[in-house]
Amino acid sequence: MNRLSDKLHEECGVFGVYSPNPAPVAEYCYYGLYALQHRGQEGCGIVVNDDGVFVSHKDTGLVSDVFPREVLASFPDATMAVAHTRYATTGGSGRSNVQPIEVNHQKGRMAIAHNGNISNAAELRSELELSGAIFHTTSDTEIIAYLVTKERLRTPSIEEAVSRAVEALEGAYSLIIMSPQKLICVRDPHGFRPLCYGQMRDGTYIVASESCALHAVGATEVRDVEPGEMLVFGRTGVQSRKEHCNTEPIRRCIFEYIYFARPDSVIDGVSVHASRIRAGEILAQAHPADADIVIGVPDSGLDAAIGYSRASGIPYGICLIKNKYIGRTFIKPSGRMDAVRIKLAAVEETVKGKKIVLIDDSIVRGTTCAHIVRMLREAGAKEIHMRVTAPPFLHPCYYGTDVDSEEHLIACKHTVEEIAEMIGVDTLGYLPVDELPGLCGNSDFCSACFDGSYPTPVPSDTRKDRFEQKLSER
Amino acid sequence: MNRLSDKLHEECGVFGVYSPNPAPVAEYCYYGLYALQHRGQEGCGIVVNDDGVFVSHKDTGLVSDVFPREVLASFPDATMAVAHTRYATTGGSGRSNVQPIEVNHQKGRMAIAHNGNISNAAELRSELELSGAIFHTTSDTEIIAYLVTKERLRTPSIEEAVSRAVEALEGAYSLIIMSPQKLICVRDPHGFRPLCYGQMRDGTYIVASESCALHAVGATEVRDVEPGEMLVFGRTGVQSRKEHCNTEPIRRCIFEYIYFARPDSVIDGVSVHASRIRAGEILAQAHPADADIVIGVPDSGLDAAIGYSRASGIPYGICLIKNKYIGRTFIKPSGRMDAVRIKLAAVEETVKGKKIVLIDDSIVRGTTCAHIVRMLREAGAKEIHMRVTAPPFLHPCYYGTDVDSEEHLIACKHTVEEIAEMIGVDTLGYLPVDELPGLCGNSDFCSACFDGSYPTPVPSDTRKDRFEQKLSER
Amino acid sequence: MNRLSDKLHEECGVFGVYSPNPAPVAEYCYYGLYALQHRGQEGCGIVVNDDGVFVSHKDTGLVSDVFPREVLASFPDATMAVAHTRYATTGGSGRSNVQPIEVNHQKGRMAIAHNGNISNAAELRSELELSGAIFHTTSDTEIIAYLVTKERLRTPSIEEAVSRAVEALEGAYSLIIMSPQKLICVRDPHGFRPLCYGQMRDGTYIVASESCALHAVGATEVRDVEPGEMLVFGRTGVQSRKEHCNTEPIRRCIFEYIYFARPDSVIDGVSVHASRIRAGEILAQAHPADADIVIGVPDSGLDAAIGYSRASGIPYGICLIKNKYIGRTFIKPSGRMDAVRIKLAAVEETVKGKKIVLIDDSIVRGTTCAHIVRMLREAGAKEIHMRVTAPPFLHPCYYGTDVDSEEHLIACKHTVEEIAEMIGVDTLGYLPVDELPGLCGNSDFCSACFDGSYPTPVPSDTRKDRFEQKLSER
Amino acid sequence: MNRLSDKLHEECGVFGVYSPNPAPVAEYCYYGLYALQHRGQEGCGIVVNDDGVFVSHKDTGLVSDVFPREVLASFPDATMAVAHTRYATTGGSGRSNVQPIEVNHQKGRMAIAHNGNISNAAELRSELELSGAIFHTTSDTEIIAYLVTKERLRTPSIEEAVSRAVEALEGAYSLIIMSPQKLICVRDPHGFRPLCYGQMRDGTYIVASESCALHAVGATEVRDVEPGEMLVFGRTGVQSRKEHCNTEPIRRCIFEYIYFARPDSVIDGVSVHASRIRAGEILAQAHPADADIVIGVPDSGLDAAIGYSRASGIPYGICLIKNKYIGRTFIKPSGRMDAVRIKLAAVEETVKGKKIVLIDDSIVRGTTCAHIVRMLREAGAKEIHMRVTAPPFLHPCYYGTDVDSEEHLIACKHTVEEIAEMIGVDTLGYLPVDELPGLCGNSDFCSACFDGSYPTPVPSDTRKDRFEQKLSER
Repeated sequence: MNRLSDKLHEECGVFGVYSPNPAPVAEYCYYGLYALQHRGQEGCGIVVNDDGVFVSHKDTGLVSDVFPREVLASFPDATMAVAHTRYATTGGSGRSNVQPIEVNHQKGRMAIAHNGNISNAAELRSELELSGAIFHTTSDTEIIAYLVTKERLRTPSIEEAVSRAVEALEGAYSLIIMSPQKLICVRDPHGFRPLCYGQMRDGTYIVASESCALHAVGATEVRDVEPGEMLVFGRTGVQSRKEHCNTEPIRRCIFEYIYFARPDSVIDGVSVHASRIRAGEILAQAHPADADIVIGVPDSGLDAAIGYSRASGIPYGICLIKNKYIGRTFIKPSGRMDAVRIKLAAVEETVKGKKIVLIDDSIVRGTTCAHIVRMLREAGAKEIHMRVTAPPFLHPCYYGTDVDSEEHLIACKHTVEEIAEMIGVDTLGYLPVDELPGLCGNSDFCSACFDGSYPTPVPSDTRKDRFEQKLSER
Repeated sequence: MNRLSDKLHEECGVFGVYSPNPAPVAEYCYYGLYALQHRGQEGCGIVVNDDGVFVSHKDTGLVSDVFPREVLASFPDATMAVAHTRYATTGGSGRSNVQPIEVNHQKGRMAIAHNGNISNAAELRSELELSGAIFHTTSDTEIIAYLVTKERLRTPSIEEAVSRAVEALEGAYSLIIMSPQKLICVRDPHGFRPLCYGQMRDGTYIVASESCALHAVGATEVRDVEPGEMLVFGRTGVQSRKEHCNTEPIRRCIFEYIYFARPDSVIDGVSVHASRIRAGEILAQAHPADADIVIGVPDSGLDAAIGYSRASGIPYGICLIKNKYIGRTFIKPSGRMDAVRIKLAAVEETVKGKKIVLIDDSIVRGTTCAHIVRMLREAGAKEIHMRVTAPPFLHPCYYGTDVDSEEHLIACKHTVEEIAEMIGVDTLGYLPVDELPGLCGNSDFCSACFDGSYPTPVPSDTRKDRFEQKLSER
Repeated sequence: MNRLSDKLHEECGVFGVYSPNPAPVAEYCYYGLYALQHRGQEGCGIVVNDDGVFVSHKDTGLVSDVFPREVLASFPDATMAVAHTRYATTGGSGRSNVQPIEVNHQKGRMAIAHNGNISNAAELRSELELSGAIFHTTSDTEIIAYLVTKERLRTPSIEEAVSRAVEALEGAYSLIIMSPQKLICVRDPHGFRPLCYGQMRDGTYIVASESCALHAVGATEVRDVEPGEMLVFGRTGVQSRKEHCNTEPIRRCIFEYIYFARPDSVIDGVSVHASRIRAGEILAQAHPADADIVIGVPDSGLDAAIGYSRASGIPYGICLIKNKYIGRTFIKPSGRMDAVRIKLAAVEETVKGKKIVLIDDSIVRGTTCAHIVRMLREAGAKEIHMRVTAPPFLHPCYYGTDVDSEEHLIACKHTVEEIAEMIGVDTLGYLPVDELPGLCGNSDFCSACFDGSYPTPVPSDTRKDRFEQKLSER
Repeated sequence: MNRLSDKLHEECGVFGVYSPNPAPVAEYCYYGLYALQHRGQEGCGIVVNDDGVFVSHKDTGLVSDVFPREVLASFPDATMAVAHTRYATTGGSGRSNVQPIEVNHQKGRMAIAHNGNISNAAELRSELELSGAIFHTTSDTEIIAYLVTKERLRTPSIEEAVSRAVEALEGAYSLIIMSPQKLICVRDPHGFRPLCYGQMRDGTYIVASESCALHAVGATEVRDVEPGEMLVFGRTGVQSRKEHCNTEPIRRCIFEYIYFARPDSVIDGVSVHASRIRAGEILAQAHPADADIVIGVPDSGLDAAIGYSRASGIPYGICLIKNKYIGRTFIKPSGRMDAVRIKLAAVEETVKGKKIVLIDDSIVRGTTCAHIVRMLREAGAKEIHMRVTAPPFLHPCYYGTDVDSEEHLIACKHTVEEIAEMIGVDTLGYLPVDELPGLCGNSDFCSACFDGSYPTPVPSDTRKDRFEQKLSER
């Protein structure tokens, strides 16, 4: 998509609606998904609860592809809906893995949208299979559906069943579960992934991965869902259950601030934009440079470039321009031409004959960086001092981020100096790991991908397509 | 589709391939589905087993819509495949109900294609739900998948599990089940629906609902699968298991001969074309007419018209011509125009000033008949003597045929004379129930829709969308 | 499409509407085009005249593909429309050649639909180009548009301009021309292609290539447009101009009766169905056979088979069944399978152990015949006596029929006995050329493709893509 | 598209290729059109010249929609191509008006791509019609085709014919014309629209509306085409003809700098980015403000915001974020929600409690401005001082810019103070007309839309659909 090729990928965005009266809830979902599209571009879906009858549409593709006018218009006005936009972490990218998943169990229907990654999914799935369970998908969301179903058979309420079911889960999960009567949202006790809720003027509740999606539909944020908290939206309003709060240390994903989330979102009280400005400021102090201008790699590098500029006094400039028409169907050039040059252009005026500071949010494989640097050199940049708003990636993530395998992570195999040479910059500086608390004002975050200290037991087989693989081996 | 609006509908066609060596099995399925398309036009799918990895594509629509060139080309050469073309009997017509269904269980993957209708599905589903099962679809094929999975956990082989699982099933089922290593086909002990198999010159086995599909791919028919028989195709060839044979009286669906099957198919040793010719001959004896010409309503009325002509000596003529371009996307005329007149044209030359015998295969609601009769009158027919190759429909079918509810069946509420007047013919004659054995030369058929004598216990709730309904009521 | 591969192709169908009051004229066109779809499947279009504003939609593809519901619904109610379904004779098959063509000239707009082929098109085009004309298409319809435009500048009425313009044309043309105020239809003096008109109950006039299209929209035929006649539909009703009648001998295309037209159409007073029955009767007398059954190749062989059966006393049977789902998107099998076998199936019951007479309408290259014969042999036919309802093709057609080049015409290079052996039949008999008058009861037809006696001067370069070629050579 | 609703629209982008040897010229066009997509999103097309045979594909829609992979792959390698991306100025937006137009004339084929607007088109068209010309489109490009064709009949070379033909044209035109042997580009003597050319490393020439498209395909800019100049690319290289240079005063469209062109383009020696920075600096001096932060409305307001920040010393901030997934198929919200809020989000962090300077490039109707201002107020902005990088629009443009009719131009009916109140800002300042030379360092520009001083005679009827209208009136 509009992300350059060797970026990290976020996994998903979730969105839910509970309205006291029938309303165009599918439309709310549609605009909510547009606001969350950056969290996943592989597929999306909306399930509407029309008085107990679930009406749904899901497919691979962007919101704009999956929901043409006639499909959107075919949804009835209703009181509840749940929606999802997907980037595959566990499970392949086929149509059957698109969420929300919908299942029928003994007590009725249920739709589930999940953002995160269950680190003990393999064990849970294995147990369920031994009891006769069959799986239609390879996504870990279906495991959650089974656990809730099993509990539901012996509990009087869906919220009680969900509360018991999540006890078995390890890892990251921000869930929205829709039953015939209720909309339930749950955030895991570590709080890896964001989740918040708000209200529209007519009282309709909106739950979403990021606050930007609340604003998109004209809702006002009430607050973040707390790590471990469950909210139950039903006829009697909203009810909070906190039996799983404070059972684990809070470990928010720091990369939501650095790269994943939209700058206009505020997560757990911290503005994403502000944390990126702060990253730039930290870099200016940690890795000063003698330069004429500071530029950022769009989009998330722009905020940090302003921070670097402010802290260093070096003027901020605009140089790298993304072609906003490059979409999913863009055909990569075969031979003589250069995809990066088509997606990104450099304003020569800004950099010609200048010493520049170039801010990006991360270096994964380094290939895109090298292209950009070459383009800036051709545009006349005299010196290039690259500054990165994250520490080097050294360890895999088991909580829903698509960090490449160690063999592809440039930082696992090369020193900073080697990397600088490989990508062609004069100097290179990463954000120091011990400065990370400066980004969000606390230390309640997960930094396992930088330092290897995992908040949960680590799974043995972590390949994204592990279930597909295992099935083939049987 | 090309069937007129108030016809009965068949439910499904199944097709399977087992090849000793990798071959374009998806292509075989594609052409096999084309040959079985008359058995279901709502959706279709192909699942290919590429050395344990299942590659599938399914969607609502005709074979030609669901499998464009690039999709067909994307399937790998492989040794096994199973395919399905669907008309919904149980379960709505949405995408999730399209078959073959694919599930993953503790011992691996499984794909199932099913033609028929399980008459005790509601009871089975209920039991499974109480044990914690979740259902993604509302089709009864998923119930079969669960039963096989449960048995598979405690049996050493998939064929043994299937054999045990089908003991719980009542009703009609012609099944093809694909496991990582084997292709298994089963026909219910009553033999309601057809199933046969053949072989290509290179030894590849083909299983199909009708023999016309064997010929389409260049295979030679070996024989019909016997009622109650299971065939297991695997590395060591084909193995027949007959533990469920002769456990129930044989009750083939007589309507396969009258209307559903293609005239070039031979089912259980009886040519469909011959049985229709015979129906015409029986009608000529039972309901003679003083007429100048015999014409048939295409397609299945044409064979019977020849039979009537031969037995009566009245010349056979061609009069009603179907527009062969009317397809799924044909837009029904809104007001002044007449859909029947666009789909079907009358050759005036044939009927002008003549007394005609008109042969059709059934009268469900009578509306299409009335249109055709009016068109023939306008074309100058002097007298119209309608003859129907089936007895009147009086009872619902629980074995996979979409007989309308009794309130819509014209024969439930009117005498033959009344119906003749309603549709505007001079005389009307149905095939007598006691002449049915003449069609296929034996009495091993189900005639419950005509006489109400059901071969299995009758379910209490038989609505096609009963699972959808029940879910909404929870 | 549903025609087998080596058949002749008709070029086009035209359809026009003139209504006294605003009416759903686009809908009439839609159903009219469905009825004329057999005359051309490459593309189609509708142009509606909404009080002087032309609203149009055209594209390559079948009526069902080109006009989805939302497109059809987007046409306004109006008083006039013209429509076209195309098979390319002159001009390639690209989108720009789809008709009706619409042009703007000094006096306003004009839309033209044309069925036929102008034999002096190259000369006319050359002259126009020398006067500065530019051509957007390679179709000869644009030449007609120029000629009418040039005349229109110096005549007071569009009908006068059309009358003068057609004087320059040689060859076949059945035209419908729509101006802001009038609908004009013209048939060339030889009457090569059919054209007729009728009226709906509310007085709306319908013009169409064949009478079957009048019936499809519920209109009653008034009469055929006479060769050379022009009809002008306008506010004051319909006016006939006959200044070009009887200027040339009438030369209807005999192949309209033999193969192109629909059997329920009546052309110039002769039923197409009847003429085919008659062809069968003629064949029975000219080429009798000692056989058990007569079968026809669908669709046009079926009528003639009845004629043969009646005249010979040999019973008529049904054996070859076309798969009615094979459409435009059918993917031809690559290797091991046989397309003919998928498109056409043989009912073994009918032919097993029998001596058969097989009736087809023509043999072009002979490849399909050979496939069918092989299939019948495999189904057990003991002897096959093939009878063809046309004489052998020996000469190219310049009047709108796609007769293959002489090098591909099997009859140009082989004797009847050789052909019989090549296609594998026991005996082969063509309809004798001198019996052709028997088909339509007169001798006013063109038989140039059989005997080379052309009614007009013959063009020097007759390649279908001659304009494309010439352009490339400049 | 991604432009907000009440913006001005540019009309078109043109792109041409002349390669000494067969090359993937369609691919070059594809990437070139991507780079020029901002100049027109209604339709696009590519015509490739494969040794005299023109292969083309055109349709309404974005480059990504019109050219899927299989279409792009179907173009042959060739030596020449011309491409176009369109926003309709004259002529409706239907498919027939998509360019390049292709015509055939007496000397062969010709394809034309045109950016601009011919101000005497009505008169020229009228004359041509009186000589018998027919028009397929309502675009003024077809007029140019006729003029060139007429001249070509009496001149020995295409370039001579083009040179004579353009003498009749008044107004704006940057043309690329492809004949079987040559690629010709022409820029009108006023130089209203940009046009430049460059060379790839292998010697291939590229012509494009903006230099950004040269860079996208890896070409190096040679220079701008001069106002009035014609370049002829052929076997003997490139030839410049200047007979029309210096026949009129140079009048570049100043709005190319202010809004239309991409910031990384350099037009006639002036960097677009630099001219926007300069606009911000001018505004800072002309309309200073007491504020805490300067923000820009993306995209073109961002550059100017940096200029304002630098000249004023007020810090630059990022606040308004465009949703980059909003595309052509985005469905506008019906009732309760606000499209602007979905397309654009405000970073509260940046503006909360602050006095802000807001920079935009123009105010047309003022409705979008008002929405943005409201959004900023809700995000907590204390004061909003709006600065506009153009003077107020007061007069229509006849040279290819879609300035709204005077009745819709807010500046025609209200004072600056009134407008400030209507859109809700505290102060409002436009760029003073007499400061415009500061943007590009000279006075060779057209400022008719601000001051009414038109460089050519003004047409009487300037409606975009004037030809459609006139035709309906005949």
